[in-house]
Amino acid sequence: MIGIALLGTGRMAHVYGPKIGAHPGLDLVRVYNHRPEGAARAAAMYGGTPSDDLSATLADPAVDAVVIATPTATHLDYIDAAARAGKAIYCEKPLDGTLERTERCRAVLDAHPVPFMLGFNRRFDPENARLRAAVRAGEIGALTFLMSWSREPAPPPLDYVKSSGGYFVDATIHDIDLLCWIAGEWPHEVQAAGSCLFDPGIGALGDVDATMTTLKFPSGALAHVNNSRHCAYGFDQRLEAFGRDGMLQTLNRRDDDLVRWSGRATEARAPLKHFFLERYDESFSAALDAFHDALVAGEAPEPSAEDGHRALGIALACAESVRTGRTIALG
Amino acid sequence: MIGIALLGTGRMAHVYGPKIGAHPGLDLVRVYNHRPEGAARAAAMYGGTPSDDLSATLADPAVDAVVIATPTATHLDYIDAAARAGKAIYCEKPLDGTLERTERCRAVLDAHPVPFMLGFNRRFDPENARLRAAVRAGEIGALTFLMSWSREPAPPPLDYVKSSGGYFVDATIHDIDLLCWIAGEWPHEVQAAGSCLFDPGIGALGDVDATMTTLKFPSGALAHVNNSRHCAYGFDQRLEAFGRDGMLQTLNRRDDDLVRWSGRATEARAPLKHFFLERYDESFSAALDAFHDALVAGEAPEPSAEDGHRALGIALACAESVRTGRTIALG
Amino acid sequence: MIGIALLGTGRMAHVYGPKIGAHPGLDLVRVYNHRPEGAARAAAMYGGTPSDDLSATLADPAVDAVVIATPTATHLDYIDAAARAGKAIYCEKPLDGTLERTERCRAVLDAHPVPFMLGFNRRFDPENARLRAAVRAGEIGALTFLMSWSREPAPPPLDYVKSSGGYFVDATIHDIDLLCWIAGEWPHEVQAAGSCLFDPGIGALGDVDATMTTLKFPSGALAHVNNSRHCAYGFDQRLEAFGRDGMLQTLNRRDDDLVRWSGRATEARAPLKHFFLERYDESFSAALDAFHDALVAGEAPEPSAEDGHRALGIALACAESVRTGRTIALG
Amino acid sequence: MIGIALLGTGRMAHVYGPKIGAHPGLDLVRVYNHRPEGAARAAAMYGGTPSDDLSATLADPAVDAVVIATPTATHLDYIDAAARAGKAIYCEKPLDGTLERTERCRAVLDAHPVPFMLGFNRRFDPENARLRAAVRAGEIGALTFLMSWSREPAPPPLDYVKSSGGYFVDATIHDIDLLCWIAGEWPHEVQAAGSCLFDPGIGALGDVDATMTTLKFPSGALAHVNNSRHCAYGFDQRLEAFGRDGMLQTLNRRDDDLVRWSGRATEARAPLKHFFLERYDESFSAALDAFHDALVAGEAPEPSAEDGHRALGIALACAESVRTGRTIALG
Repeated sequence: MIGIALLGTGRMAHVYGPKIGAHPGLDLVRVYNHRPEGAARAAAMYGGTPSDDLSATLADPAVDAVVIATPTATHLDYIDAAARAGKAIYCEKPLDGTLERTERCRAVLDAHPVPFMLGFNRRFDPENARLRAAVRAGEIGALTFLMSWSREPAPPPLDYVKSSGGYFVDATIHDIDLLCWIAGEWPHEVQAAGSCLFDPGIGALGDVDATMTTLKFPSGALAHVNNSRHCAYGFDQRLEAFGRDGMLQTLNRRDDDLVRWSGRATEARAPLKHFFLERYDESFSAALDAFHDALVAGEAPEPSAEDGHRALGIALACAESVRTGRTIALG
Repeated sequence: MIGIALLGTGRMAHVYGPKIGAHPGLDLVRVYNHRPEGAARAAAMYGGTPSDDLSATLADPAVDAVVIATPTATHLDYIDAAARAGKAIYCEKPLDGTLERTERCRAVLDAHPVPFMLGFNRRFDPENARLRAAVRAGEIGALTFLMSWSREPAPPPLDYVKSSGGYFVDATIHDIDLLCWIAGEWPHEVQAAGSCLFDPGIGALGDVDATMTTLKFPSGALAHVNNSRHCAYGFDQRLEAFGRDGMLQTLNRRDDDLVRWSGRATEARAPLKHFFLERYDESFSAALDAFHDALVAGEAPEPSAEDGHRALGIALACAESVRTGRTIALG
Repeated sequence: MIGIALLGTGRMAHVYGPKIGAHPGLDLVRVYNHRPEGAARAAAMYGGTPSDDLSATLADPAVDAVVIATPTATHLDYIDAAARAGKAIYCEKPLDGTLERTERCRAVLDAHPVPFMLGFNRRFDPENARLRAAVRAGEIGALTFLMSWSREPAPPPLDYVKSSGGYFVDATIHDIDLLCWIAGEWPHEVQAAGSCLFDPGIGALGDVDATMTTLKFPSGALAHVNNSRHCAYGFDQRLEAFGRDGMLQTLNRRDDDLVRWSGRATEARAPLKHFFLERYDESFSAALDAFHDALVAGEAPEPSAEDGHRALGIALACAESVRTGRTIALG
Repeated sequence: MIGIALLGTGRMAHVYGPKIGAHPGLDLVRVYNHRPEGAARAAAMYGGTPSDDLSATLADPAVDAVVIATPTATHLDYIDAAARAGKAIYCEKPLDGTLERTERCRAVLDAHPVPFMLGFNRRFDPENARLRAAVRAGEIGALTFLMSWSREPAPPPLDYVKSSGGYFVDATIHDIDLLCWIAGEWPHEVQAAGSCLFDPGIGALGDVDATMTTLKFPSGALAHVNNSRHCAYGFDQRLEAFGRDGMLQTLNRRDDDLVRWSGRATEARAPLKHFFLERYDESFSAALDAFHDALVAGEAPEPSAEDGHRALGIALACAESVRTGRTIALG
């Protein structure tokens, strides 16, 4: 059993807490929040000893690893503390919203090389993983195009948008990670376009809520991402990989799979899973499995801090492309 | 050019008239109806010389063939006259509603062996024909099951039902012909069940408006037909052929092929083509093509009078099975 | 926690054993087999105390309920013993292969009214349950047709066939239960046709391996079942419910949901889940959940012994229909 | 009847010739080619009087309109001559490969305002037209994204590539026209990326064979196009329109619509229609219908010369974007 301290008690902690508690190989030893009442509430729900003392939490020899599910701006501090304490780290994405702090984060991990895994959970969705495996096995030959759709049901509150790092850093970063992981290479050029079509408040913050992004890879393969903060029919999540010998697509997920025929519509399907908690629920479990299995096997977990660093660089370049109207070259 | 006399001016004549007129190899020479005003109206619409004189029509040397699109009960008389006059015959299905008269019809054709084709148009639907070709080419191996769905949008007027010969003779006969043609054999046993679920007036006439039929073939293959006089989403027409090595299915047809996603339904498709005139329009043209081509090539057209005779026998056995609660053996 | 004694160590015990062990509300207290080494092997795999002593097993006060997963012919004896011992009973389907013994079984349960649930697991498949819920909620109006496809990947060994009670009792009984449960009524007439197309050994035993069955319900609704002991593309499991206002269909399940396009085929999907253990795995868990929940709530679990008795009567009538060529009336 | 002179005897003339000949409202009066033997061959195939004398052809009072199906570089000359002769003009796309000559062409048409229609045939595909009509009718609300896939089965000969004006002018121009026509507005910004992945000879000519293009419209709507000179499964042609209230998609077309199930793949469909002659055959007929109907009604046909001019400007901006790595602003 791997002893876990869960840091954070917000939305993402609520995703991970029950899954850690139910995992046969993980033991939820401690639940940390800087406010004692938050820690107590989380412990009551998920188990583990509540604590508002980070040092004591990390000093506990029963704690083998931390799961960081705190606000993005605090990730670096917790990674720093956990790495110095020699604990393995699972950190919710993104590493951070700025390249400079992300680099510091990587330096900390270089100095204190504990096992580290970044929570790009979509890699662990079974169909996404199968598509990648089929691509890497050569099922469709050399890649020509990759495409990713990610359309959210409704814009988030403006407070969330303010601290999100912008739409590309908040959302497109998932598609970027997924596409680069499938392609097996990093893009050297990126261009993006964005509009504010749904919430004028988002525009007032200088952000966008509908974007199209193009990545160009050294192999010549091209990738497209479209993101929307609004989608009338649920959380639209699709991948398409087009290669020299064929194409692979993933399908959307629904609450039910019945096919409905009526005088209004035929072969109609239910609306899509509402949002990421519903759509990707099992991927969070699978991500924890992968973290557990890597620790047990003594192997480096993936996605790595480098993956997070690179994906952030690309997401920031997308924003720069919108701002400057230029194709951005990546190092 | 093959000179055609079109007999009849009702609904089916309205299907064939324009198609004969537009056919590059057919010449609509005469339009016959026993009432002069009917003939005149039809000729005004489709071309050809109107006539209410059958003898004169059949004596016209410019008439090479007749297309019989009159009420079912009159088919035999027209076949008799046309065969005696040495004209090739295309006759709308069914040959007749009784086995005894159908046998007389076949005797007439044996005595006067003119080219004869029965209008089982669904064989000429491109997808039905492709499914059969794939089955006969062995694409799915030896047949296990054949299934046919035929569900009509709404019950016909009771006057039509009265003279229809019953639901099996009126409608199931199409599925029977299609399935036997695909199977390449005639069933030796049939069982059927029927209900009156939509129009009590149909029940009052002793007829049914929802049926399920099972055919058993000498090879051991089994076939299922379901027919309904009501269908909320249009004219549902499907075939499924299941064999030792796989399965083939045809798809329904719609007025448009757009895929629609909304908050109510996703991947929704339009309602189906309304009824047989819309769904099978091109099959009537293809049937006339086949009639034309057989005449030009000097080959016997198909479906034959024997096909019609056998299909009628099976349809009547279905009705008998419902009446007696027995599996009916076929000669 | 409800203490469970698992009776039997064969294929179905292997389905239930791990699921009981993993269930948060069930405690696998004892594992019984009449041979001590079988019981020991099962206990080593699933947990619980092994036992070859039925009386001791049923006398154990920690045992609240038995799960009977023994050969069909022994179900009655175990039900008898468990009911007399006052234990709740979950019994794998069918109750028995003969109506006479099934009636005795019901008499035992009438005399010793312990909670009893029959393992018609397909009711607990999420999509089957959703289709039924939608039908019962009136989503498609009054039922016209119900259809069920159940095609198995390959014929079972002849030893299995010999003790199976025949194809209708072994397999069609599942479709019958499902369709009657959806319809909310019992058929009053049944007719069936069968062939031996895949394994001549099955025919030599007087059994069939490809069948079509028609059920007629008092409401006038008709149902069709097709069963095959061979299916080239996996375990084909479909339901179609056609009502006055529309239609509902369930979809097949696959090992992966990728859509594949190549020069040979487009929009191609993976072969189907291989057989019932793969296809219906979660339904067995859901059935145990329902058993647990009914015991906790003090409610009568379903499917009941009457459901099993009636379904057996219908399955035997199917076989009689094939044998006699008659529509069989049901009491 | 509208008298037509068909100019040109190459591939596109071979598309239009038979369709003009078969059209009930068009009369193929003359077939012109600058070489007498070409004209004679075409006249033998499609009808009409052959001619290698342009002046005589245009002076013929029986000629009401010309259909220009000559090489792109000659379009302007023929438009000039026909306009001066007062003939209505249907011209195969593109107007020309350079903006300067296209502007001259528009000046000619301004000076000699004959009815003019440009052959952007994809607008006349029934499903494309239905998608546009649904978008314009507000079925999916305000547009967020438009997407167009156009992937060709195989790269053209290098001689064709040399005179094609580049991949964006040759192919993407179709998607651009379609998307602007659906959007009902012209983009003000465009960015594009391209690679040479299939034929190094295309790269040696400075052209690309795989591209992704993003258009940004004044409304804020964004559009994506992906084009490939190679596609293993046929001519992939899809549209997706995503709006505030839902989404609409068109489907690909196949030689047959059977659904195939086997041990290798389930629900598999046939490969796609091979290329544009097969896929868009009926759209060329519908385009001629529209030309005919506009002339008869005395209305200005569409797509107009301005449409062609604007689409060319956007296509050239795409190429410039690839060359310069900049987002290109459009006037």
